[in-house]
Amino acid sequence: MRIVIAPDSFKGSATARELCAAIARGIRSVMPAAELLELPLADGGEGIMDNLVHATKGKRVEAQATDPLGRALTAAYGVLGDGETVVIEMAQASGLPLLKPEERHPMLTSSRGTGELMKHALDHGYRKYIIGLGGSATNDGGSGMLRALGLRLLDKQGQPLPEGGGALAMLAELDAAGLDPRLSASQITIASDVTNPLCGPLGASAVFGPQKGATPDMVAKLDEGLRTYGELIRAVRGIDVLTVPGGGAAGGMGAGLLGFMNAAMKPGIDVVMEALGFAAAAKEADYIITGEGKLDEQTLSGKVAAGVCRTAEPFGVPVIILCGMRALPAEELARLGKASAFSIVPGPCSLEEAMAKTLDWTEACTAQLFRLLQHSC
Amino acid sequence: MRIVIAPDSFKGSATARELCAAIARGIRSVMPAAELLELPLADGGEGIMDNLVHATKGKRVEAQATDPLGRALTAAYGVLGDGETVVIEMAQASGLPLLKPEERHPMLTSSRGTGELMKHALDHGYRKYIIGLGGSATNDGGSGMLRALGLRLLDKQGQPLPEGGGALAMLAELDAAGLDPRLSASQITIASDVTNPLCGPLGASAVFGPQKGATPDMVAKLDEGLRTYGELIRAVRGIDVLTVPGGGAAGGMGAGLLGFMNAAMKPGIDVVMEALGFAAAAKEADYIITGEGKLDEQTLSGKVAAGVCRTAEPFGVPVIILCGMRALPAEELARLGKASAFSIVPGPCSLEEAMAKTLDWTEACTAQLFRLLQHSC
Repeated sequence: MRIVIAPDSFKGSATARELCAAIARGIRSVMPAAELLELPLADGGEGIMDNLVHATKGKRVEAQATDPLGRALTAAYGVLGDGETVVIEMAQASGLPLLKPEERHPMLTSSRGTGELMKHALDHGYRKYIIGLGGSATNDGGSGMLRALGLRLLDKQGQPLPEGGGALAMLAELDAAGLDPRLSASQITIASDVTNPLCGPLGASAVFGPQKGATPDMVAKLDEGLRTYGELIRAVRGIDVLTVPGGGAAGGMGAGLLGFMNAAMKPGIDVVMEALGFAAAAKEADYIITGEGKLDEQTLSGKVAAGVCRTAEPFGVPVIILCGMRALPAEELARLGKASAFSIVPGPCSLEEAMAKTLDWTEACTAQLFRLLQHSC
Repeated sequence: MRIVIAPDSFKGSATARELCAAIARGIRSVMPAAELLELPLADGGEGIMDNLVHATKGKRVEAQATDPLGRALTAAYGVLGDGETVVIEMAQASGLPLLKPEERHPMLTSSRGTGELMKHALDHGYRKYIIGLGGSATNDGGSGMLRALGLRLLDKQGQPLPEGGGALAMLAELDAAGLDPRLSASQITIASDVTNPLCGPLGASAVFGPQKGATPDMVAKLDEGLRTYGELIRAVRGIDVLTVPGGGAAGGMGAGLLGFMNAAMKPGIDVVMEALGFAAAAKEADYIITGEGKLDEQTLSGKVAAGVCRTAEPFGVPVIILCGMRALPAEELARLGKASAFSIVPGPCSLEEAMAKTLDWTEACTAQLFRLLQHSC
């Protein structure tokens, strides 16, 4: 019996890794000889680097970089177990958690640090990248990152622009002549679930600017800057980053990456599943167990459980979805293919109790399900 | 696919019949062609008559009788679908619910009405009886019932005793010469989970007397009366009803039945399963689904779920136990054989909500389990 264990975290109560272990204990209590593969899935948002490094038995590499306000920091990127794929998470060198609340300033913050990590990895020979866009502090269209890799941003006088999203409104010329040539030999996968466009009322500045510290005035200026930037990218590179879905991800980082690099944007869960070889494992499995804290309408629009089900479906492998709360009617669940869903709770309880006992209850529920399967098949 | 659906009621929220229907809906939503047999099991306590009549498509027969205080009433007994087995429930003619609280008086109350129902059934040719002992108002050792069938109870002067448990202390002679001869040609099964002896600190009077209205003084007198009665039965019939387990059931009705009739006492659940042909159905089943409101230590000591598992075990049929609350550790559950247990609740909730939504949730949980089985086997 081959079983792939691939849950998301249950937010606030258990990590995907802990859940993998609890599910594995539950199965082994019934079927000690089962062949278990633990693939803790994250949804591709925050934590993607650590998750993938751990799951593939890869390593962390530390490098000098600058934080969103230009201060020196030591940041990390990951190298997966395959020894050739680098994972860079924007939150590491350009993340909002690096700033005190009063330091948030999207007019000034720069994504340069992320570009520096990339340069470090390029220098060490890596040509395959996963870039996680979650948690950025910036609204600079990824221009800081691109500068670190050789792009020049000039104003009407031909003078280099200051860093940060605020200066982009003065942008007159993009000079890509010095852009690191190794980028065109690299394959870049952007992990992002954000589909907002670069500009406008649903754009980066309007939707994500305020949480990074933008006032309404700043939002208008930032939006104008990104528009100028986007139009110039279109002119120089022939790529319409103004309309592409996800161009507005991470303060326009999506547009910067798509405009200047050999990059493709994918939902985070797809990137994670690909990096972990989930499809190949699923194909050989007798069962797949996934899980999500709450199974609801959002599940269907593409977080972990839905991604697992979608990948498993062509192989006809049954998927067991464990959850804290099953809040999806049967008809909707049926859209997840050969899946069935079970709450781990053993009876009436408070949310607090369920969160405190998630691991024990997950183990117990798994054991009962596998007892049933053992007796049945 | 043949599935036997055999739950207990979930006390306070759903009857066994309602649960059968909900489970059946859940299965049919996944496997429309499954062959389902609904056997709502009661634990053999209160409601046994209606449950068995309904489950076997039998009938109710009404008859004139007297209530515990000698007043006329119309009471019912059941005839099972086999057309030959009669179910008499003590609560029907000799039950505590027939009295107002202030009328409770175990010195005076008589089980005569139950004997009258039996006589009516004997007159109509029935020779096979199930007697349910739950809910009696009496402490007369079943002497009222036996009088209705021809037994005479006499005092030292050879005068007939008044009815009721209080008079038994004056008992000097039991004259069984006039006892209905058809009784010895009848097979009587007593459904009772009570194992208390007739007399003493764990006897009928001490343990069940107070809830029937006995004061401590009365308890002493009643206990003395039952002892006299029991000793005379032993002398006359050669049966030691003083020590037999269950002799104290239903105010000593157990002793009266065991002493004068061709009777065997069994746990209620065993009687119910036998009457419904559960073992034969279980033998042919691919799955058995049972259920209990709360699965806990008590479950193991012989209510519905344990009875179902015990019966199914020799046939190797997997049993699915649905419950509101699974409060039994895995090691204990494993003692129930090829069983697995699942709570119907879909996540954290209050007891009130769980009780209000029992049927919907039972249906939904069943559907998910059978989706899993459908995908697996």
